[in-house]
Amino acid sequence: MRAASEPLKARRIYLLLKDKIASGELADGERLPGEFALAEEHSVSRVTIRQALDLLAGEDLIQKKSGLGTFVHRPPSKVRTVLADVANVFAHLIEMGRTTDVRLLSFDYVTPPDQIREALQLAPDERSQRSVRVRLVDGVPFSYLIAHVPERIGRLYSRDDLARMPLLELIERSGLTSASARQEISAVLSSPDVAAALDVDVGMPLVALRRTVYGKDGQPMEHLQALYRPDRYTLQMNLERTGDEGHRHWSPTAEVYRRERPRRRPPVRKVGKS
Amino acid sequence: MRAASEPLKARRIYLLLKDKIASGELADGERLPGEFALAEEHSVSRVTIRQALDLLAGEDLIQKKSGLGTFVHRPPSKVRTVLADVANVFAHLIEMGRTTDVRLLSFDYVTPPDQIREALQLAPDERSQRSVRVRLVDGVPFSYLIAHVPERIGRLYSRDDLARMPLLELIERSGLTSASARQEISAVLSSPDVAAALDVDVGMPLVALRRTVYGKDGQPMEHLQALYRPDRYTLQMNLERTGDEGHRHWSPTAEVYRRERPRRRPPVRKVGKS
Repeated sequence: MRAASEPLKARRIYLLLKDKIASGELADGERLPGEFALAEEHSVSRVTIRQALDLLAGEDLIQKKSGLGTFVHRPPSKVRTVLADVANVFAHLIEMGRTTDVRLLSFDYVTPPDQIREALQLAPDERSQRSVRVRLVDGVPFSYLIAHVPERIGRLYSRDDLARMPLLELIERSGLTSASARQEISAVLSSPDVAAALDVDVGMPLVALRRTVYGKDGQPMEHLQALYRPDRYTLQMNLERTGDEGHRHWSPTAEVYRRERPRRRPPVRKVGKS
Repeated sequence: MRAASEPLKARRIYLLLKDKIASGELADGERLPGEFALAEEHSVSRVTIRQALDLLAGEDLIQKKSGLGTFVHRPPSKVRTVLADVANVFAHLIEMGRTTDVRLLSFDYVTPPDQIREALQLAPDERSQRSVRVRLVDGVPFSYLIAHVPERIGRLYSRDDLARMPLLELIERSGLTSASARQEISAVLSSPDVAAALDVDVGMPLVALRRTVYGKDGQPMEHLQALYRPDRYTLQMNLERTGDEGHRHWSPTAEVYRRERPRRRPPVRKVGKS
């Protein structure tokens, strides 16, 4: 789209700067580049830059100090950041159930999209139990979870069960045992329904995780699409070098490497990840 | 920003639909919802929806078939998707050097931002060797890499070296050995400079990886910020259940779990990841 109107350009720059503040690339107290520099970087007029800055100031994300410039205003949040160790999916499920809340948005039996049918290896006429949940920490949403479970397994728990307990725990309660999982991590834009549920602007970036969990027999038991707010959820992993020089590679370690978090980050609490 | 102009809204919806097509959520040949449904979902007029669809049609991403509806047009790409196994960072560095190309955008010695200074544990007056690279597969960019190395280590290789060899290989050539790494995965919006380098629209989502590599002595050797096009790069990992029922957890496996890729995906080639 070539000929963008001024408010369009201003909103684009507003979202980009807001994203940089959320990611910490622009830290609390940091001075923003001047209007000239920003106008050049984004190929827009200074009027457009001022409109974008006004939007940020309206949300109290920046402060203009006359004669000094414009500064990022993002004091440490009282809301904890959820830290998930990718090497430790299951271990913290129970702790997560205790330390975060869940809101069940929908629960039904559906004909899943092709991509999910393939992942779950369903027969053409087989349905899935589909649920949409939002997880919250300190009352603030951080993840949006769409789960599909083959109907024959999904009939083993109820809507009320899922409103109270983690999905994998419910599946295992029925005597099924998960043995392996395959995950892919990507990034997507928040669409209107997800943005509303996660309390972010439409068009902000989200971490997208797809996970298929397999039972001991190799049969798929669950397919999860998880969308995470990057400012509230950090996927982390630690790697250790193994093997000799000729055959060197990194192996993930289950133990989290602990170090001081940068001072500008909000308080951190480590929990599980779905 | 409440009162959005029509072109602003149209571009927002254009980006959201383009993202859904890129991620495969809307698959090749799939029928889009009707204009009424899209207008309701995005809280806009049908005029705005038609503007957004015109933009997509202009890029040949959808096709309108009169009387039938609008269909996604995304035939399998001839460009390979890069598959990176998170459990196997180093093993494929050499293969990656062979199978992908690198474009060195900048190479200098700088005073790094606070966040990176902390990660590299630099003294207040210590500088870093900063490089910006783009990696390409089949001539198409998939990653944008900003690397910082403490200057005392960064002096051990030249600009020409980095234009030819992977950074970690150059560092190790000097006799230093990497022993462990810490990674965090997030998502960001593409800013103008990154969007230009990766050939995507400004405001599209990117996978963001931050990695600090440590030597045998525990000292940081390298800090990498990597931004990946989600349509060209997939971060994957495989987990296996270990431990007994009372102490169950998942462990990543270095070996990639292979299965048929969904038919709509482009051809895949597995390489390393930075």
